[in-house]
Amino acid sequence: MNSTDLFRLIQTKKSFLCVGLDSDIQKIPNHLLDLEDPVFEFNKQIIDATLPYTVAYKPNLAFYESRGIKGMMSLEKTMNYLEQYSNQVFTIADAKRGDIGNTSTQYAIAVFDKAASGFSFDAITVAPYMGADSVQPFLAFPGKWAIVLALTSNKGSDDFQLFTDINETQLFERVLRRSSSWGTPDNMMYVVGATKAEMLEGIRKIVPEHFLLVPGVGAQGGDLKAVAKYGLNNHCGILVNASRSILFASSGTDFAEKAMLEAQLMQIAMKEILINNRLV
Amino acid sequence: MNSTDLFRLIQTKKSFLCVGLDSDIQKIPNHLLDLEDPVFEFNKQIIDATLPYTVAYKPNLAFYESRGIKGMMSLEKTMNYLEQYSNQVFTIADAKRGDIGNTSTQYAIAVFDKAASGFSFDAITVAPYMGADSVQPFLAFPGKWAIVLALTSNKGSDDFQLFTDINETQLFERVLRRSSSWGTPDNMMYVVGATKAEMLEGIRKIVPEHFLLVPGVGAQGGDLKAVAKYGLNNHCGILVNASRSILFASSGTDFAEKAMLEAQLMQIAMKEILINNRLV
Repeated sequence: MNSTDLFRLIQTKKSFLCVGLDSDIQKIPNHLLDLEDPVFEFNKQIIDATLPYTVAYKPNLAFYESRGIKGMMSLEKTMNYLEQYSNQVFTIADAKRGDIGNTSTQYAIAVFDKAASGFSFDAITVAPYMGADSVQPFLAFPGKWAIVLALTSNKGSDDFQLFTDINETQLFERVLRRSSSWGTPDNMMYVVGATKAEMLEGIRKIVPEHFLLVPGVGAQGGDLKAVAKYGLNNHCGILVNASRSILFASSGTDFAEKAMLEAQLMQIAMKEILINNRLV
Repeated sequence: MNSTDLFRLIQTKKSFLCVGLDSDIQKIPNHLLDLEDPVFEFNKQIIDATLPYTVAYKPNLAFYESRGIKGMMSLEKTMNYLEQYSNQVFTIADAKRGDIGNTSTQYAIAVFDKAASGFSFDAITVAPYMGADSVQPFLAFPGKWAIVLALTSNKGSDDFQLFTDINETQLFERVLRRSSSWGTPDNMMYVVGATKAEMLEGIRKIVPEHFLLVPGVGAQGGDLKAVAKYGLNNHCGILVNASRSILFASSGTDFAEKAMLEAQLMQIAMKEILINNRLV
């Protein structure tokens, strides 16, 4: 899927919602826990309920790895289930990987090369600290994407991302400027937290064409309208992620129904934004 | 294991060698490939051969994840095999993780909490880009360590790690200064590449007490004597990692024997350094 395909998908669904599958086994409804694979069953029902309203799913790998091999089996089943919808949703391995070249290549195989690893995500989130040769291996897979951390939504993002040089360039700006030449807007995106929506204006000047993956709307308190105001470009150019606010909208047997309503509410708000900006 | 225990181990084995288990199935000897789990068999023989000469093993998780669930099974078997030697070696999950707080907690469970994930490493490597709340969850596990990336050995380390502020502080120095208050020299180490050995002198001024994990001696060209000259402190304070130069010293049926010789050569050089510095 390239950026044109992704924009087309956004136009079809009138949504730029990404549902984060942070499927914490401690938080999923009790009535699922007796099933053979509670987390897969949870994901399946969440997917069935939210598919019309979302253009992307983003499993957070930590929540699967924390259950060891069992957890990876839940993830594999989830991704196999999503395969039937491969033209209807974009899939992101939220993994924050990054290492020296030969190791990043192995991480890329782990998420992109189904024959080797069993997984074939469309994209992976990547941490830029180690520089060019830690990111480029992810860009060597045709049709696949690296989504590089720029300005994250957590409190600790101030510690290093706002570190400023003598020209008043902040580290996250240097990450954007330097890394944007490593790939193209067809195989790179950036993570920009919704809690920093006003900073999207400056970010758009540096990377006008790239898609931005924006977490932090919902549980982390970011504001959808502000994100759209500063983040939209002429092909939408943003994916807004929501995880907990959708997944755990209810802890009862009606969890999927409540998740659907939450996703639908976001989709309605996004549709209005897309219409107002003449993007549909 | 705290830093006193680790120093005692170094004194007992007269070695500060860490063997990196970057066990690439493409590179292990052909005669192992017919076995049920070639990578585990390779690791087992490497461990049996190198155990007297090394104080730590560092599986590089990318090389296991790239084989999907099968790979994670090889890793689990390897770690279970190492458990019998838990007083004789320190174990490091080379994973370069780091995410918002609730997610880093899940990554910590994935490597530290055997009951949940099947894994109980002593330490994990962590990428600092997302700041304090991305690193601190790893420090909440008693007896476990976070090994934070400071100055890495790859070419791309220049891209961001040397980014410099108005006071001529470089990003990696800020990482050292700021993060060293998050934990103690008993639960934090830093990754400092051997290819930057001369920079260890300045690093030691910022973190005199912390252990440093030093990759890049061997295949990446770093020099052991230079690392020791600038990196040693009064409790040794360095672990030098070698991966490919030991693992793939031979691609024949004598691979374990050749790995043993390589590890032994490094241990002999390390013993001399420890003696010359009155550390044993």
